[in-house]
Amino acid sequence: MDYGKIAIEKHKEWAGKLETTPKMKIETKDDLSVAYTPGVAAPCLEIKDDLKNSYVYTGRGNTVAVVSDGSAVLGLGNIGPEAGMPVMEGKCALFKSLGDVNAVPLVIGTQDTEEIIKVVKALEPSFGGINLEDIAAPRCFEVERRLQEMMDIPVFHDDQHGTAIVVCSALVNALKLAKKENPTIVINGAGSAGIAIANLILKLKLGNIIICDSKGIVTKDRPNLTTGKKELMDKVNLNNKKGLLKDALEGADVFIGVSVAHCVTKEMVASMNEKPIVLAMANPTPEIDPADAFEAGAYIVGTGRSDYANQINNVLAFPGIFKGALQAQATCINDAMKEAAVYAIASLVSEEELCPEKVIVSPLQKGVADVVAAAVKKAAIESDVVRKW
Amino acid sequence: MDYGKIAIEKHKEWAGKLETTPKMKIETKDDLSVAYTPGVAAPCLEIKDDLKNSYVYTGRGNTVAVVSDGSAVLGLGNIGPEAGMPVMEGKCALFKSLGDVNAVPLVIGTQDTEEIIKVVKALEPSFGGINLEDIAAPRCFEVERRLQEMMDIPVFHDDQHGTAIVVCSALVNALKLAKKENPTIVINGAGSAGIAIANLILKLKLGNIIICDSKGIVTKDRPNLTTGKKELMDKVNLNNKKGLLKDALEGADVFIGVSVAHCVTKEMVASMNEKPIVLAMANPTPEIDPADAFEAGAYIVGTGRSDYANQINNVLAFPGIFKGALQAQATCINDAMKEAAVYAIASLVSEEELCPEKVIVSPLQKGVADVVAAAVKKAAIESDVVRKW
Repeated sequence: MDYGKIAIEKHKEWAGKLETTPKMKIETKDDLSVAYTPGVAAPCLEIKDDLKNSYVYTGRGNTVAVVSDGSAVLGLGNIGPEAGMPVMEGKCALFKSLGDVNAVPLVIGTQDTEEIIKVVKALEPSFGGINLEDIAAPRCFEVERRLQEMMDIPVFHDDQHGTAIVVCSALVNALKLAKKENPTIVINGAGSAGIAIANLILKLKLGNIIICDSKGIVTKDRPNLTTGKKELMDKVNLNNKKGLLKDALEGADVFIGVSVAHCVTKEMVASMNEKPIVLAMANPTPEIDPADAFEAGAYIVGTGRSDYANQINNVLAFPGIFKGALQAQATCINDAMKEAAVYAIASLVSEEELCPEKVIVSPLQKGVADVVAAAVKKAAIESDVVRKW
Repeated sequence: MDYGKIAIEKHKEWAGKLETTPKMKIETKDDLSVAYTPGVAAPCLEIKDDLKNSYVYTGRGNTVAVVSDGSAVLGLGNIGPEAGMPVMEGKCALFKSLGDVNAVPLVIGTQDTEEIIKVVKALEPSFGGINLEDIAAPRCFEVERRLQEMMDIPVFHDDQHGTAIVVCSALVNALKLAKKENPTIVINGAGSAGIAIANLILKLKLGNIIICDSKGIVTKDRPNLTTGKKELMDKVNLNNKKGLLKDALEGADVFIGVSVAHCVTKEMVASMNEKPIVLAMANPTPEIDPADAFEAGAYIVGTGRSDYANQINNVLAFPGIFKGALQAQATCINDAMKEAAVYAIASLVSEEELCPEKVIVSPLQKGVADVVAAAVKKAAIESDVVRKW
């Protein structure tokens, strides 16, 4: 199926994937007087008297902004805000379809870190959460960190944390199935997603990590490491292994790829420990073709694609995570909430279903967001990151 | 009917007046692959190659932002952005209900002129137009002017121009009905709405203006005039009348009030020229009760209220004006477009219908926005303010 061609036709027909639909009819003078003036003054004054009423009388408690500067859209790179909009609209459509969360796509015409921060901060009164999307590294780290410090609503860069959460969900189930304890996990790709995956694996104590980038294994003695890599160096590669990706994979239990097509060979998979787990998520073409990986002895293979088993897609995470955070009126999405999301998503594959072809549920299975939301909400309340009024 | 009480109940039930509804179902992997990755990359690249495609493949060509800083909400004053949100949501609901224009309510957490300008400018790639709302004078003038200079999409402060347009529509019909030529028009209230009304009346050459504020007739020799008043002084009150509102009204043909309740007495109306036209739009209580105005001899009375005849409400204007501007891909809303809107709205009362109780159509009459949109679009094209790509 030529999705690009169909997408062009459908996007032209849609002319925008979203509508802003009123919840009420406005057909009579009474309708107008209740939804608008003069009646509307009453809820306005209730909010003026107590700001927490903005979650009662307006939509912000179930509305997020999906914000991008268009600097790192899909695998297309810095295509600019206008060109990033179809992705943001799609994301918002998924927020609503899968999580019943209202989402507003906002692409902004600046790629200056300070200006992005000012713009997003100024939008705080309108929203219950901010989903940052497709912002290039390292800008994305600072934008997210600074905004979360300044804002009383969650600020979440989905390309980092959403990806990390679904990868860890698949990993949890894969390790359980393969009966691997204390595995060696090779992450290939040390951009924003790779670093976030490494950090979450460490938080959840899922195994020992070796992280690789285009130059091979990242070691602490390498000059000019990015902040993200540097901060990891005391916690990964504890045996101080050196060399290329192929050296890292020798004897390893898990490969996690957020890198480029075809960088893993059959020989590399064959060199891994028994029952190798291969999560090859380069998009649209994985690091190794699943058929090749299986031929080389892989036990479990996951990709980002919908046409293979085990699609690892952050569609599984963000609708439920924000839904839960909004329901709790959380001020952030902390590690406890991320962990809750990981295990909630993992739990959606039952013991009976769990097999090499199903270590993660389908992104479109009904009810995923509600299960994730309940777990995330609970974690937010228990870790006490809910808004105090 | 206690609209405030009902509004509280309904706003609680709604918990936000808008939903962001996807235009498509996302239930299968194919749905996901067309609306989101990998298919979505194709329209992204079409836009990257030619920015005008952002009006083809995304919703911006039919989407406006309704932006407020919450500094002058209804008659409630500076109640802040969160408290202004119910009004902005209501406005967006009307944009959609009446004009089928998608509208996103954005209340922003700054009342600093420069910051507002930066934030709104940064949002340009997401929208086809900006409706500024409930921003206090004189900040509203500078924000609108500077943004319109910087942006290639229309920036329109509805409290000024929307109000001026509907007042002029009613005035055109009222003058026709009363057979008044070259009338003397007293405007009471010299804030943003009063100044905009005066400017539009002058543009349309509807009569001679005397403008009053809380101190009485505004004259050019008065010290410390605001810029808006000062700029008008060479064009209004050409006989240099001095005194109070009652002096201005003596012998005048038209009273236009955008001021405060009960500031006009029966005696003042009785002192006007024959067939006085009284448009008393103070909200929620008019400058004079319509019954009193009629008793004192008024020929035509209009107010902002839905419970009297001749409701002058900018709901008649903004959905159609933006709809027409968006359809034309206009870069601004210029005087020709405003004039077109005035006469389009006026034309909706037919010769046969025109009578003192009906100089303006009901705000909820079906089809108003389409008539206005067609006229505004035509004016935009003829005056050549459409986007060049």
